[in-house]
Amino acid sequence: MKNTLLLFGAAAVLVFTESCRMKSTATAVQGDAASKTYVAPGKYDEYYNFVSGGFNGQVSVYGLPSGRLLKVIPVFSVFPENGYGYSEETKAMLNTTQGEIPWDDQHHLELSQTNGEQDGRWLFANANNTPRVARIDLTTFKTVEILQLPNSGGNHSSPFITENTEYVVAGTRFSVPLGAEDAPISSFKENFRSTASFISVDKTSGNMKLAFQIILPGMNLDLSHAGKGVSHDWFFFSSYNTEQAYTLLEVNASQKDKDYIIAVNWKKAEEYAKAGKGKKVAADYAHNTFDEHKQAAASVIEKEVLLLDPKDCPDMVYMIPCPKSPHGCDLDPTGEYIVGSGKLAALIPVFSFSKMTSAIQQKQYEGNFYGIPILKYEAVLHGEVKKPGLGPLHTEFDGKGNAYTSMFLSSEVVKWRLKDLQVVDRVPTYYSVGHLMIPGGDTRKPWGKYLVAYNKITKDRFLPTGPELAQSAQLYDISGDKMQLVLDYPTLGEPHYGQACPASLIKEKQVKYYDINKNGNEFVTMGEKKAGVVRKGNRVDVYMTAIRSHLVPDNIEGVFVGDEVYFHVTNLEQDWDIPHGFAVKNNPNAELLIMPGETVTLKFTPEKQGIYPFYCTDFCSALHQEMSGYLRVSPKGSNVPVKFGTGETITGGSVAQK
Amino acid sequence: MKNTLLLFGAAAVLVFTESCRMKSTATAVQGDAASKTYVAPGKYDEYYNFVSGGFNGQVSVYGLPSGRLLKVIPVFSVFPENGYGYSEETKAMLNTTQGEIPWDDQHHLELSQTNGEQDGRWLFANANNTPRVARIDLTTFKTVEILQLPNSGGNHSSPFITENTEYVVAGTRFSVPLGAEDAPISSFKENFRSTASFISVDKTSGNMKLAFQIILPGMNLDLSHAGKGVSHDWFFFSSYNTEQAYTLLEVNASQKDKDYIIAVNWKKAEEYAKAGKGKKVAADYAHNTFDEHKQAAASVIEKEVLLLDPKDCPDMVYMIPCPKSPHGCDLDPTGEYIVGSGKLAALIPVFSFSKMTSAIQQKQYEGNFYGIPILKYEAVLHGEVKKPGLGPLHTEFDGKGNAYTSMFLSSEVVKWRLKDLQVVDRVPTYYSVGHLMIPGGDTRKPWGKYLVAYNKITKDRFLPTGPELAQSAQLYDISGDKMQLVLDYPTLGEPHYGQACPASLIKEKQVKYYDINKNGNEFVTMGEKKAGVVRKGNRVDVYMTAIRSHLVPDNIEGVFVGDEVYFHVTNLEQDWDIPHGFAVKNNPNAELLIMPGETVTLKFTPEKQGIYPFYCTDFCSALHQEMSGYLRVSPKGSNVPVKFGTGETITGGSVAQK
Repeated sequence: MKNTLLLFGAAAVLVFTESCRMKSTATAVQGDAASKTYVAPGKYDEYYNFVSGGFNGQVSVYGLPSGRLLKVIPVFSVFPENGYGYSEETKAMLNTTQGEIPWDDQHHLELSQTNGEQDGRWLFANANNTPRVARIDLTTFKTVEILQLPNSGGNHSSPFITENTEYVVAGTRFSVPLGAEDAPISSFKENFRSTASFISVDKTSGNMKLAFQIILPGMNLDLSHAGKGVSHDWFFFSSYNTEQAYTLLEVNASQKDKDYIIAVNWKKAEEYAKAGKGKKVAADYAHNTFDEHKQAAASVIEKEVLLLDPKDCPDMVYMIPCPKSPHGCDLDPTGEYIVGSGKLAALIPVFSFSKMTSAIQQKQYEGNFYGIPILKYEAVLHGEVKKPGLGPLHTEFDGKGNAYTSMFLSSEVVKWRLKDLQVVDRVPTYYSVGHLMIPGGDTRKPWGKYLVAYNKITKDRFLPTGPELAQSAQLYDISGDKMQLVLDYPTLGEPHYGQACPASLIKEKQVKYYDINKNGNEFVTMGEKKAGVVRKGNRVDVYMTAIRSHLVPDNIEGVFVGDEVYFHVTNLEQDWDIPHGFAVKNNPNAELLIMPGETVTLKFTPEKQGIYPFYCTDFCSALHQEMSGYLRVSPKGSNVPVKFGTGETITGGSVAQK
Repeated sequence: MKNTLLLFGAAAVLVFTESCRMKSTATAVQGDAASKTYVAPGKYDEYYNFVSGGFNGQVSVYGLPSGRLLKVIPVFSVFPENGYGYSEETKAMLNTTQGEIPWDDQHHLELSQTNGEQDGRWLFANANNTPRVARIDLTTFKTVEILQLPNSGGNHSSPFITENTEYVVAGTRFSVPLGAEDAPISSFKENFRSTASFISVDKTSGNMKLAFQIILPGMNLDLSHAGKGVSHDWFFFSSYNTEQAYTLLEVNASQKDKDYIIAVNWKKAEEYAKAGKGKKVAADYAHNTFDEHKQAAASVIEKEVLLLDPKDCPDMVYMIPCPKSPHGCDLDPTGEYIVGSGKLAALIPVFSFSKMTSAIQQKQYEGNFYGIPILKYEAVLHGEVKKPGLGPLHTEFDGKGNAYTSMFLSSEVVKWRLKDLQVVDRVPTYYSVGHLMIPGGDTRKPWGKYLVAYNKITKDRFLPTGPELAQSAQLYDISGDKMQLVLDYPTLGEPHYGQACPASLIKEKQVKYYDINKNGNEFVTMGEKKAGVVRKGNRVDVYMTAIRSHLVPDNIEGVFVGDEVYFHVTNLEQDWDIPHGFAVKNNPNAELLIMPGETVTLKFTPEKQGIYPFYCTDFCSALHQEMSGYLRVSPKGSNVPVKFGTGETITGGSVAQK
């Protein structure tokens, strides 16, 4: 413990000294940096960069090299801006076995792959707090699926994928008793377990299914990456707290010189699962899907999961010792080298996949961890990068034989050669870099032109904004021998990790609007003449249309205090970038943004009588300000007939038939 | 009606033709644009630019000229990212007389002023849906006050201010019956009214108070601006729908050739109010304030408002005819010229304040509107800007004698001279510009270097992101004779309007962290030794501390299903940019971000037994991943004693005494 704290203390001093020294040189940006990052008005960025929102629960989409924020995709948190989590159609996306949860902590992203290369179809995102994995459709930039994970207490080492997107993985960050019995915290070693979940992905639809979970000892899984090429059949997870501490982890989980990288043969696991070696156990977890035809989400509670125990499945899991509390667990483009970044280590170990397979064949073990064989460190080691800096966290690759590792404590990016493990360049970051990202840098085909450092602390880097400051990204040009810092830009939430790919992979297949004739929403209104109001008991369904620049109906009477009013708004436009918005005054709900051809529903339960204006919230035309209407809410039991319409077609005393 | 629609149809054709034509020239950006907008890493932007979030309900802070997003300030919408609206301390900020509302539509902003110049103290923001005005403290970038407005159905023409921030105004967008009686919508002319609210602002504290409301006829108030210099005593509001339509406003509110600019002598109104000419009436509205010492918000329901009726208060209100459905209502830096931008007009009328006062003296009326004198158009007119473009919306000034008007329909910014009303330059926007903004451009002291156009439609300007695209801003250099487009950047939500000021006005007075010794939060924990758990009935208060890199306590037992658990987390750090975050697995709540020296409370009501991990959500140190703990939730009625602590200090069987 003393050593750890001393190391950390020394490192902290170093951070601050470095920071001060660096500040003066921060502006020594070479003259061509402006032109390298400037994207002229009307020109496109070269890359889409998807960045995790961390504690905002969403995914941000930036353009590179401009650093411009193109969009926020709502994933795990409610998004009042467009009604995600508030509209009737999207509420089910946030459902869990603990009910609707309005927030999560989104850490890592992975673009789908074919043959180990990005294919631009889907983006996967993890939720670290309430364990879940989401899938985003890159033709619509919408979250279309969220799968909850049972038997886990925090999902950090996720959503990394195999080379053909066969599986997305999820690994437990905080071990918990499987099955949620009431166990004392002090029974950690006996009762607490981690799991590595393998979620299969349908090749055509992308639909996820929890295929199996591998039971692992109580510890903290941190990050992971799949094998590639030669190591295709394997998945690698980093771990910390193999000390199995359950209090003051700062000290108690930093005792051992080495934790483990856990090597899982997922092909073998798949065979065991097929061969019935697993145990089906009861487990509740939500599976939420958004149906693009019905334009609505549904949540199903799954009831069972298949557990694989390494003790019943030989040759499925091995432990590779790795110094100290490894964070990143990264494979080079060939799949031969496995880089473990021990965040408290003063070196970077690089393991060899072929040495690992030999070591397994020759049973070069140094004991076991809960029955799982521990391979000998030296038997698996390719070599160590010496004096790389302090606090290595995460490594990506440029496809030209170089690796780039982020150094949290010494606030720098270090470039080193895979061939001979020599450091060849280093550049400062401002400050405290976490992950870094090279477009395609964790695949078989990196696009080694740019590197982005995602930093935790910005302090004096931007105009100050009170006690709460944005975190930031820094863009480096890595096309030459030396890395060149070209741009600093603040980010939303906490940018833990990103993925980037050439724009061409995504740009051409965008859905621009929805075909109104294919609208399968249960409550669609196919044209203004079909608009109307239907009452059933105290439920009132308003079938409304929106088109520049009026709502039909825009006068509604005969609604009473306590009614449940559902505004089903269909946007009749059939052109790109003509959304309409919809909101009702005083509604304790959010608004809707309705894309062309889409139907979305907003619920309003008026508690007081009065006149409630409603209107289009998204400036749509020169007469947008006129696109509004009134709902009259009368006292319960009063004798006000249903009446609705727009302009001269206001209909007295009748009720629309759907 | 036919004319209007024809005009609009023709204009629409023009927009699209223009757009297509312009696209090819869009990239004709002059060579020095990159260097004009590039802010090198470590360098600061020149201006803070506060931009309304529109349908996201928040305020965005950008740096100019880089266009970088420095921060999102949560104002009217919940913000799961930092717990705004979810923490016990902030819930009251979103309270209204209709309960907590999670969203609003934030349209306009105004920086506080002294002597008509920006003073960098506060930023005011309006809520358009549920009528409210917010005040943001620019030393902390936090929303510290929200005042609801009674007798209004939508607050659009707000939060514009007088020259010494004596008053912030709010004007009704959608007229409603005052007092919310159950009136038919068709009784609009008889029963529906608009109001102009004057909110006084305390010179020292900034605290707002609804001083009085002026009752106006049923119509739609759109925008407003205070007088300056010579016109200091006056306020001007634009209006549309003086036709008093209540359905299909697109057609029915576009009938008249002229609507009105409403001139209000607020000094006289103040005198009438003091002299008891108003009527105090019952009205419920919420007044929410955040107490920086207690670090908590409180909501008070106000019960009364003072109404001034123009018929009891002569010489207080006049109507100036203005073609056609005016949007912007903007005064030049001298306060002499009032620019009305009729969004369906083919010219821009410029009124003269001195002519207005003469016309009033000479009673040059052309009738009245609900008893309010209508001044003769020609008697007040300074002149008309001829053929400025189509769809003028909003005008700002450079302080060098020039005005700049946004043209929605012809998608351009037009520069014209106040002196002779000649158009001197025009540049295209991409596309459909709404407001525009020059730093200080609506004050007595504009900083006429940059102009930003806030655009509604982006279509092909950025890499596509499915059907839902970001709106955008465009930055122009206006320091020379000709405007120069230098940067395009996407924006969050809908950027209706912005304010910008030199960084020096704000940068030096930032609060960097809170002094822990001045922490007056009821539930503060002053040091780790005071941490503990207190049970009272089924309420459990956890007094927790956070400091790199552990939480005290980090083991908690003796909590049962159905308990109401309040985690009061105090961040003990005393350094800038070292927040900690806090979240509990499966909690149907958001997270907390806790700034150094601050205490924030997260509520959790566990519904199922089990082990619930909790952790720091904001990467704070190399041992951040270790900053976590466990809460054990046992079945109701089970015999598990209270136990809590961290490391070796876990305390069995006792309860902390506070």
